[in-house]
Amino acid sequence: MAPFDCLTFLTDYGLEDGFVAACRGVALQIAPNTRFIDITHYVPPGDIRRGAAVLAQTIGYLPPAVHVAVVDPGVGTARRGVAVAAGDSVFVGPDNGLLSWAVAEAGGATAAVSLTNRALWLDTATATFHGRDIFMPAAAHLAAGTPLAQAGDELDVASLVTLPRPGSRVSEGSVTAEVVTVDRFGNIQLSVTGLDAARAGLVPGTTAALAWHGRQQSVPVRSTFGDVAPGELICFQDSAGYLAIAVNGGNAAQQLGLHPETLVTLTVTK
Amino acid sequence: MAPFDCLTFLTDYGLEDGFVAACRGVALQIAPNTRFIDITHYVPPGDIRRGAAVLAQTIGYLPPAVHVAVVDPGVGTARRGVAVAAGDSVFVGPDNGLLSWAVAEAGGATAAVSLTNRALWLDTATATFHGRDIFMPAAAHLAAGTPLAQAGDELDVASLVTLPRPGSRVSEGSVTAEVVTVDRFGNIQLSVTGLDAARAGLVPGTTAALAWHGRQQSVPVRSTFGDVAPGELICFQDSAGYLAIAVNGGNAAQQLGLHPETLVTLTVTK
Amino acid sequence: MAPFDCLTFLTDYGLEDGFVAACRGVALQIAPNTRFIDITHYVPPGDIRRGAAVLAQTIGYLPPAVHVAVVDPGVGTARRGVAVAAGDSVFVGPDNGLLSWAVAEAGGATAAVSLTNRALWLDTATATFHGRDIFMPAAAHLAAGTPLAQAGDELDVASLVTLPRPGSRVSEGSVTAEVVTVDRFGNIQLSVTGLDAARAGLVPGTTAALAWHGRQQSVPVRSTFGDVAPGELICFQDSAGYLAIAVNGGNAAQQLGLHPETLVTLTVTK
Repeated sequence: MAPFDCLTFLTDYGLEDGFVAACRGVALQIAPNTRFIDITHYVPPGDIRRGAAVLAQTIGYLPPAVHVAVVDPGVGTARRGVAVAAGDSVFVGPDNGLLSWAVAEAGGATAAVSLTNRALWLDTATATFHGRDIFMPAAAHLAAGTPLAQAGDELDVASLVTLPRPGSRVSEGSVTAEVVTVDRFGNIQLSVTGLDAARAGLVPGTTAALAWHGRQQSVPVRSTFGDVAPGELICFQDSAGYLAIAVNGGNAAQQLGLHPETLVTLTVTK
Repeated sequence: MAPFDCLTFLTDYGLEDGFVAACRGVALQIAPNTRFIDITHYVPPGDIRRGAAVLAQTIGYLPPAVHVAVVDPGVGTARRGVAVAAGDSVFVGPDNGLLSWAVAEAGGATAAVSLTNRALWLDTATATFHGRDIFMPAAAHLAAGTPLAQAGDELDVASLVTLPRPGSRVSEGSVTAEVVTVDRFGNIQLSVTGLDAARAGLVPGTTAALAWHGRQQSVPVRSTFGDVAPGELICFQDSAGYLAIAVNGGNAAQQLGLHPETLVTLTVTK
Repeated sequence: MAPFDCLTFLTDYGLEDGFVAACRGVALQIAPNTRFIDITHYVPPGDIRRGAAVLAQTIGYLPPAVHVAVVDPGVGTARRGVAVAAGDSVFVGPDNGLLSWAVAEAGGATAAVSLTNRALWLDTATATFHGRDIFMPAAAHLAAGTPLAQAGDELDVASLVTLPRPGSRVSEGSVTAEVVTVDRFGNIQLSVTGLDAARAGLVPGTTAALAWHGRQQSVPVRSTFGDVAPGELICFQDSAGYLAIAVNGGNAAQQLGLHPETLVTLTVTK
């Protein structure tokens, strides 16, 4: 495999400990000329779904790379460690669904191996820190030009664990969707694209009734925050292409009490 | 324009999402050899004044660079996106005052453009993420050598939005100033330089009465934290050259209940 | 001294201010080709012991480097600033014990200087920000090839401040140890190695009684989180080689109310 210029890294390790730095030090000694991009290390501990969402929505803006992602509540158990080729990139991490949305976003898996070649691991691999001991050194070797097939036993890509996609239902004048993720600003991303919502009639200029948990609230559909007054709700197509709900200058998730996996319905009222 | 070796980045995006990484990925694909320095991404959401203060106090220690700063509550409205040449650097961001203190610190704006050249934007520019779609790609092109004039329509630098400077009043034996910013340690920076305070008689070795919100407290003026006992208040010239109030080993902002924009008066008592 | 490819950085500065960026900007202007690894900047303010633990447990995975560490409650007082050669690396920071565990981990100090050569400092050195004004520029000069002896007056390595090691007592069937550190996941690291604990009979497959503060709790000794049910306690050898206590998928420190420096006893029960 041709070497990669770039290695990216997403985890739930946080930045309070030396975990990320240890991984980076390991990579630097194997692939010294590879550029390093941290995606985030603040996935909530063990939250595979949140990690999958952030990874999938970011990779479209990253160069071809070896993407390492580790949110791994099953570390040390029978779950496999894998490297998956998709598009121009390779994804490395636990086979628990974390990689699956990004792999699909990149065009789908074209080849995959189980990371069984211990020659690519640290000599001192532990049972609880596979990011440092297995995933990162294997990824760095792949970035430096080791062929995928040398990283371990070939896998049937159909056997890779995939995370179920949050559902949505679109009908004339109405969409029902799930909260996928909430960002730092409290903006709420729904599991329906802006395009699909527009087909249902939720286009900028309309107003919708937002219903969830027996509550209801009127929300204008607009293009950007500044189209509503400060403190007002807005429904818009977000920067990842999904329908989203925000408060201009405020925190919609806190204000509405909406969390990932909550079902909401938006119905055009005018 | 000669290319820049360095690109810096300050936002209110936080590190919990993939926003900063997406911007970095965009930049890396346009200007692969530019070094990247993150100033901070933890400006409180929408707090232009805090972003302006951190940027202005940091740039004196950074190499010549394209400095990208995005705290942008008006994203997608009529507020302009700008690139401003000042000193050896170029500042890129929304024209909402965020850049203004740093531009002044760098010697003042010598040229500016509105970022209207869509050839420098991402093809897929959205209404809500100009950091990724407009500011960062334009900045990366500037870093890679695109002349400023090609980034958009020339602006009169006098038309750039500037943030009002917090006021201060210095008289014999007394200074009145505003809290500019509070750092991680709870140290409180005031809007008066240590030099001006010294002219008023607030020099190391003296003691001052600190008054705010009808409260009063005695504070020794000293050079560094260790000049007072652990847990004691101290008034000193901080590392940015401003008068500041701290607690040795403690958090002065929490202890005194002082916040940005609070007015305080310090009067020499002995 | 041969130049170093890598410069690492650990502080209690946080990422909310521009402090880390200012230091990096200073280093970049002195040693532009040195790679930069942030270990952590979230050591709790002034917590020398925590900084020492994170540094010592990370450096084994980092390349030869100039390691800069600044947790410095005594900044501006008589405490020395030092550069210490150990193993393939040089450690730079305040002489308050922060470096001592990492220096020991690297093989012990072979030479040391007090950072008295002002030619390596910033011209504008302040009394309260030695990270930016003294430690980082001196370190960058060392990384760029300045010999250690030129950084200041030679010191007797025996005069360096060392932090006391947390104690432990191992007997047949029982270990008594101190909580050294708690990580993001709430995992509790104890001051006894997994090897020593195994010698006492605490090996995977056994069960131990954990006693602290008059409380007691039964804990299975296992190899990795997945060896116990979700929500269950586990005692294991952590990725740094120390005995640790965790909750599979939970936060053991919060659940048990255990903090650094608490004494605990583990006794094999079956």
